[in-house]
Amino acid sequence: MSPFIRTPALQFIVRIGILGTGDVGSRLGTKLVSLGNEVRMGSRKAPNPKAAKWAKANGPKASAGTFADAAKFGEVVFNCTAGSVSLEALKQAGASNFAGKVLVDVANPLDFSKGMPPTLTVCNTDSLGEQIQRAFPDAKVVKALNTMGNEVMVDPGLVPGEHDTFVCGNDAQAKAKVVEVLHAFGWENPIDLGDITAARGLEMLLPIWVRLMGTLKTRNFNFKIAR
Amino acid sequence: MSPFIRTPALQFIVRIGILGTGDVGSRLGTKLVSLGNEVRMGSRKAPNPKAAKWAKANGPKASAGTFADAAKFGEVVFNCTAGSVSLEALKQAGASNFAGKVLVDVANPLDFSKGMPPTLTVCNTDSLGEQIQRAFPDAKVVKALNTMGNEVMVDPGLVPGEHDTFVCGNDAQAKAKVVEVLHAFGWENPIDLGDITAARGLEMLLPIWVRLMGTLKTRNFNFKIAR
Repeated sequence: MSPFIRTPALQFIVRIGILGTGDVGSRLGTKLVSLGNEVRMGSRKAPNPKAAKWAKANGPKASAGTFADAAKFGEVVFNCTAGSVSLEALKQAGASNFAGKVLVDVANPLDFSKGMPPTLTVCNTDSLGEQIQRAFPDAKVVKALNTMGNEVMVDPGLVPGEHDTFVCGNDAQAKAKVVEVLHAFGWENPIDLGDITAARGLEMLLPIWVRLMGTLKTRNFNFKIAR
Repeated sequence: MSPFIRTPALQFIVRIGILGTGDVGSRLGTKLVSLGNEVRMGSRKAPNPKAAKWAKANGPKASAGTFADAAKFGEVVFNCTAGSVSLEALKQAGASNFAGKVLVDVANPLDFSKGMPPTLTVCNTDSLGEQIQRAFPDAKVVKALNTMGNEVMVDPGLVPGEHDTFVCGNDAQAKAKVVEVLHAFGWENPIDLGDITAARGLEMLLPIWVRLMGTLKTRNFNFKIAR
């Protein structure tokens, strides 16, 4: 029996804002369009060539604009910017444009400035997820999907067998909404780790993820919590 | 088919030093005695009531002494002290007493002084494993077994299905020796993450381990790298 759900159906979400034009934003945006949602990809300045190319490739349900355009458009907003610039990007998006909304924080606070392997710009006693929740108290921040490569995020079947995804955040309804999205991506039983402070543990998985990528010579692996 | 080896046989190791008298040291010491090894448990001062009790309970192959006694006795030495005091304990053990030997670092640099959840005293750009290797360059430090509860360390079958254990360190022969010990404990395929700098990632698993223990309400779980 497959551990993953095969019926991708988002019942309630129809408009999604994606902040960021990188691999993560593109991958999530494309998947969300394929599931029937309208998705607007936001960038620092518009027009942005990568966002325009993505929108063109994904048909009439896909559009592009500024961070603020995307945040305003989405009923749910995904932070897919580089973690080191996420707070600034969200400020540009405008707090009022995502106040009261579910803000899915997929970012990792990776610092590549000192070469490989990257270190974290924040960890141990704080996390990017918590920083975002503090800076934008009216957003319902849910940390999710940051513990795997973007290919696996939207296609868990890429990795054989059972494996896990996680959510944490302060708002139960917001987490339920994100779990609904994860179900649609094929994740059967996301593990709810509690409030947003669990983002510390989730982000601190990155160093071993990077190390494993080098050891296993693939991005198609994932953590499973055997129990 | 079980993923774990059922024939516990240590071919070459006969004398083990255990530094630390806590749950980890006791659990590992008892298992190593049961596999036919002679084990000496070391503590800051001797006699130590916990070490004496452990030695008495484990028969003629078990003995107790100071950190220095245990380090000198062992052909392989396990650091099972609290991570926050490991460097001091190893200094007391005496660098010359474990020079050239395999030093298995099982400790985690957990700081409970600010309450729960614990934070790490070192992480991100350094690790306890690296600190120990730097402080004792003649020891062959191998980080292992720090990513799970002590019950699971010596009995992987406590957790259903397949799951993983890791080693890292700068000396290939030392890692091979530790893998031999892990085989005897029942771990079939430890993942070799490379040099001792991988201890960062291994120790940074602790925050999510602690969180998962609270969420799952059990210590009998473990990380598996699905791939």
